[in-house]
Amino acid sequence: MRVSVLRGAGELAIEERPEPSPAPHEVVVRVASVGVCGSDVHYFEHGRIGSHIVESPLVLGHEASGEVVRAGAKVTRLEVGQRVSVEPGVPDFTCSQCVAGRYNLCEDMRFFATPPVDGAFAEVVTVHEHFAHPVPDSLSDDAAALLEPLSVGLWACRHGGVSAGSRVLVTGAGPVGLLAAQAAMALGAAEVTVTDVNPHRLELARELGATVALDVSVTAISDAGLEPDVLLECSGHPAATAEAMHTVARAGRVVLVGMGSDEVPLPVSRVQEFELTVTGTFRYAHTWPAAIALAASGRIALDRLVTGHYGLDEVREALTVSRSDPKAMKPVVRPWAS
Amino acid sequence: MRVSVLRGAGELAIEERPEPSPAPHEVVVRVASVGVCGSDVHYFEHGRIGSHIVESPLVLGHEASGEVVRAGAKVTRLEVGQRVSVEPGVPDFTCSQCVAGRYNLCEDMRFFATPPVDGAFAEVVTVHEHFAHPVPDSLSDDAAALLEPLSVGLWACRHGGVSAGSRVLVTGAGPVGLLAAQAAMALGAAEVTVTDVNPHRLELARELGATVALDVSVTAISDAGLEPDVLLECSGHPAATAEAMHTVARAGRVVLVGMGSDEVPLPVSRVQEFELTVTGTFRYAHTWPAAIALAASGRIALDRLVTGHYGLDEVREALTVSRSDPKAMKPVVRPWAS
Amino acid sequence: MRVSVLRGAGELAIEERPEPSPAPHEVVVRVASVGVCGSDVHYFEHGRIGSHIVESPLVLGHEASGEVVRAGAKVTRLEVGQRVSVEPGVPDFTCSQCVAGRYNLCEDMRFFATPPVDGAFAEVVTVHEHFAHPVPDSLSDDAAALLEPLSVGLWACRHGGVSAGSRVLVTGAGPVGLLAAQAAMALGAAEVTVTDVNPHRLELARELGATVALDVSVTAISDAGLEPDVLLECSGHPAATAEAMHTVARAGRVVLVGMGSDEVPLPVSRVQEFELTVTGTFRYAHTWPAAIALAASGRIALDRLVTGHYGLDEVREALTVSRSDPKAMKPVVRPWAS
Amino acid sequence: MRVSVLRGAGELAIEERPEPSPAPHEVVVRVASVGVCGSDVHYFEHGRIGSHIVESPLVLGHEASGEVVRAGAKVTRLEVGQRVSVEPGVPDFTCSQCVAGRYNLCEDMRFFATPPVDGAFAEVVTVHEHFAHPVPDSLSDDAAALLEPLSVGLWACRHGGVSAGSRVLVTGAGPVGLLAAQAAMALGAAEVTVTDVNPHRLELARELGATVALDVSVTAISDAGLEPDVLLECSGHPAATAEAMHTVARAGRVVLVGMGSDEVPLPVSRVQEFELTVTGTFRYAHTWPAAIALAASGRIALDRLVTGHYGLDEVREALTVSRSDPKAMKPVVRPWAS
Repeated sequence: MRVSVLRGAGELAIEERPEPSPAPHEVVVRVASVGVCGSDVHYFEHGRIGSHIVESPLVLGHEASGEVVRAGAKVTRLEVGQRVSVEPGVPDFTCSQCVAGRYNLCEDMRFFATPPVDGAFAEVVTVHEHFAHPVPDSLSDDAAALLEPLSVGLWACRHGGVSAGSRVLVTGAGPVGLLAAQAAMALGAAEVTVTDVNPHRLELARELGATVALDVSVTAISDAGLEPDVLLECSGHPAATAEAMHTVARAGRVVLVGMGSDEVPLPVSRVQEFELTVTGTFRYAHTWPAAIALAASGRIALDRLVTGHYGLDEVREALTVSRSDPKAMKPVVRPWAS
Repeated sequence: MRVSVLRGAGELAIEERPEPSPAPHEVVVRVASVGVCGSDVHYFEHGRIGSHIVESPLVLGHEASGEVVRAGAKVTRLEVGQRVSVEPGVPDFTCSQCVAGRYNLCEDMRFFATPPVDGAFAEVVTVHEHFAHPVPDSLSDDAAALLEPLSVGLWACRHGGVSAGSRVLVTGAGPVGLLAAQAAMALGAAEVTVTDVNPHRLELARELGATVALDVSVTAISDAGLEPDVLLECSGHPAATAEAMHTVARAGRVVLVGMGSDEVPLPVSRVQEFELTVTGTFRYAHTWPAAIALAASGRIALDRLVTGHYGLDEVREALTVSRSDPKAMKPVVRPWAS
Repeated sequence: MRVSVLRGAGELAIEERPEPSPAPHEVVVRVASVGVCGSDVHYFEHGRIGSHIVESPLVLGHEASGEVVRAGAKVTRLEVGQRVSVEPGVPDFTCSQCVAGRYNLCEDMRFFATPPVDGAFAEVVTVHEHFAHPVPDSLSDDAAALLEPLSVGLWACRHGGVSAGSRVLVTGAGPVGLLAAQAAMALGAAEVTVTDVNPHRLELARELGATVALDVSVTAISDAGLEPDVLLECSGHPAATAEAMHTVARAGRVVLVGMGSDEVPLPVSRVQEFELTVTGTFRYAHTWPAAIALAASGRIALDRLVTGHYGLDEVREALTVSRSDPKAMKPVVRPWAS
Repeated sequence: MRVSVLRGAGELAIEERPEPSPAPHEVVVRVASVGVCGSDVHYFEHGRIGSHIVESPLVLGHEASGEVVRAGAKVTRLEVGQRVSVEPGVPDFTCSQCVAGRYNLCEDMRFFATPPVDGAFAEVVTVHEHFAHPVPDSLSDDAAALLEPLSVGLWACRHGGVSAGSRVLVTGAGPVGLLAAQAAMALGAAEVTVTDVNPHRLELARELGATVALDVSVTAISDAGLEPDVLLECSGHPAATAEAMHTVARAGRVVLVGMGSDEVPLPVSRVQEFELTVTGTFRYAHTWPAAIALAASGRIALDRLVTGHYGLDEVREALTVSRSDPKAMKPVVRPWAS
């Protein structure tokens, strides 16, 4: 099979590798679509993310869908031919975090496209049967792949306690922000304000149901008269985070989703006087069933985020388009595209 | 002002009464629409509901909307001319239940159309300013009145922990069941099955978004292959309740909303082995802001439930139509209709 | 090794069996103490519990402590020589209930002394390393065994939401009731009333810290002026359950712990008007760390419940003493006692 | 009656004032004991706390107990002669925060010793009947006064989700830290580590049940091998806070109780990767019943914290002793002491 590997910062190559054999509880998935995530771009540009360093050739890509083409000996939940969305992290199932129901915090998690675990810019991948989720025909391959970033958005909403009547502020209208905003509406939020400085993204936010799309290059968050119950911070900008936090209502919740900040100054007396709760998300857990239902029923739009398709030979383009095209939102790699 | 009063079982009359003066924190509302509830019908037919006995002339009706026409001296939240939805129970604010945030359990609650407190089949009513909720123009008068039964449905969903991905079974497709079902979808439920024996109601359930509308005169609940996470019991039939309870999945929740059962046999070993949680709802608390947002944005349809309008002189027809017309769902009284 | 087996109702025998080999993640435990549970007595007397039938010789006993004498190849958490308390049910770790953090609801649970899985009336047993919990020297062997019924009591308190200031009613002063009552106090309950008809048990309840020990053969629960926030039903008597349920305060919780009731009549209008929550417990999950800490620090007394020690040859006496001696509370089998 | 007033930073005087008349729902309390809080000291030293400025003579003191000597016309819960603990903040009962059950976040709270509301360094005070809590004889006057700081500790534990088995780190062994630590043990914590640099305070922490009392002038928090589930930050030192936060386990909770920090650097990637939750407390709500029960039963020791008694003429000494005496923990003012 063919894979696209990253050999170091900026170095991509196509390799031929032997097709993998499934372990007893694994299935082999012929990859249909793989969304490009900011972390893929970061590995490509820097050869690392923090302490995770690309030391040997690494296959990127962790937002994947496809079709089961082979099943391990003990697989009972899936059959060859089923279309699936791949949940890209498989935990050890038995550590204290897993047993407590928090498998995303498992210390022995094996996560796609995180050194030394390969990802999905490949013709086929293997995955544990519990983490290959069947999808209905109403979901396209691209949409099935984008259940992964939708899961990030749903998980953010759960941490934020978004529910019927919530007033939500989403800072940052990238893919995760737009999906968090849609997820908030799908959970019953009364209003969802989305902020960004990119007019294309704000336009898309409006189209996807945001109550207000606020251009913070024109109006500062602190001047917008907001008083959200929940802040879903999806920009990763420390200054935006700090400013947005000051708008949150008493007993409100702040969820730090966006990466990139090293430290954010926490306004202690505000946190105390308003009894704010500040938390962060790390990937997601238990989100696929909900994500599938919301997307398959049309309550959340996924295909609308896709802004281009690329073959395995075009992974470089897929990883760099966001730097050159302000309209680029979510490039998708299709490994079998000719 | 004119009011319709119930003088005893089956005895209705129009009375002229002096227009009420608002207390300092009250507003006077010119009533626009009032939905007819099963409890109104029950008072009309029996002159009582359990220990609540109609001993002196009682104005029925507690699902009301209208316009503020006068405000008490200390009212700050409302102005004359505002359209409002009336939350029909005003608690004492200071008892231990109120202070704990559970005002619906206040022992000193004064609730519309519950002896000796008059209701809204009247040209004007008074209500505490905190319980007259402004509504946007996108909500019709009828819809503003039906925020009350929607609140019952939302409160049921909250007690059931309905959230993204929930599989919900709603037994009974009357107004509360249909609104509970819509509320569940609006909170992100993955699937909502609604049961009834009335084909008109099942048809309406389908139209309003139920995933499955099950005619239990054809297929028994226990034969339908259901395994809901949440059962919202809105029929009030003990046998249906007991049968439905047996389909609920491990760690599932059962919410008893429908009234009418005296006792339901609780299957103890099932409750234990599956760790089911069974609870009931009493009215609602804190639901109006969410109800307004969901209805005003079109995520929940209210006007579609209305099946007829009646003047104050036609309250008897409004209270009896459900006995004669299987298509009757929610009659609405308009006190000022000529 | 020697084991005591149940061959059918009332038929006990000693058998010699080959010593078990540990699977890679298992340890072999030399059994020190095993508490006798009502379920052991029930299997002995009836040869079955509901649909669980003793069809081949079964070793009873599931409240066990001992010392690790051998460790499987992949064991990392334990060493030979460690004293442990055995959590007697090992789930499959990967089903949806396990992954959700509810391993006690795993459908593939293998639980000690439940056909066809053998229990601990044996010289040695094997158990998964995650379910053999190291205990400090401050806990006796008997106390380490009784962490199992304490877990039942703690789990009941968690389901009941017992916390600082709770007013708790515990019906039934058997071992589980007494441990639930102690657990409630250890979690900060303001008051704990324990009911029974056995004066020895009531006396022990008082000694162990119950605020009130109520003899319900003298004063009916409904006459005792109680208004608990939480009812922990540990008697298994349907009539007592129904009566006690009527005393629970608004927004209160009822936890059905005691087994034996087939059905209990659920007072629907009370459940609704008071918004009571009724739930049941099935074993426990995640309780050992807390149980160890509370018992080891002396906040909960375990040894005080022990009312006799028996060798493997005396299992019959251990299983029948509760029928003959009203002071019998918790007989303990010590397989190596000569 | 005589009161001690603060006229500006460092300026104290005794004034004679007319005895207050109770409003209909108020009682007049003859003050027995008043604990001195750090905020009293801060007002005394600086004439302000943040934006709260002493602009006219202010009576300090908000940790008070006493005896009801007169009751307003509508008081039903209390009688003359009852000993009470005063909850020093009375909310408006009807704002959205109050109605939601969060009266501590009421914007119209009237709180003792916060300009312009007078406090309890006075011979008598008035308080709303709902906020004068009867106490049993087993609680001394001093202990009844110290239910206030105990409430701070309990509220911190609730925000931290402290429950059976929690591993808790309390930074700062002042009165609030010591009471938070005791509260944690009383809620079932498995271990409670208390840190400080004052050996007297650490000794007292040990005496009051802390599992470990850590002198952070000797061993840095980060070197102590801690991995708490819950951090209750009671020191108010930004550096200690930041360091302690890094020790918290996955899915752990951080509660900022100590005042004094303006900003604390929030380690975003740690908060995300560990899904930490950081929150703060503002006073307390619904704590008195639990506090009374825990203190009256001896599960929490309050009198042990008292380190001196002062008359109204000695308020200056009571407010300054903590600067001069490292053993001073909680000075108590007794307005009627001769």
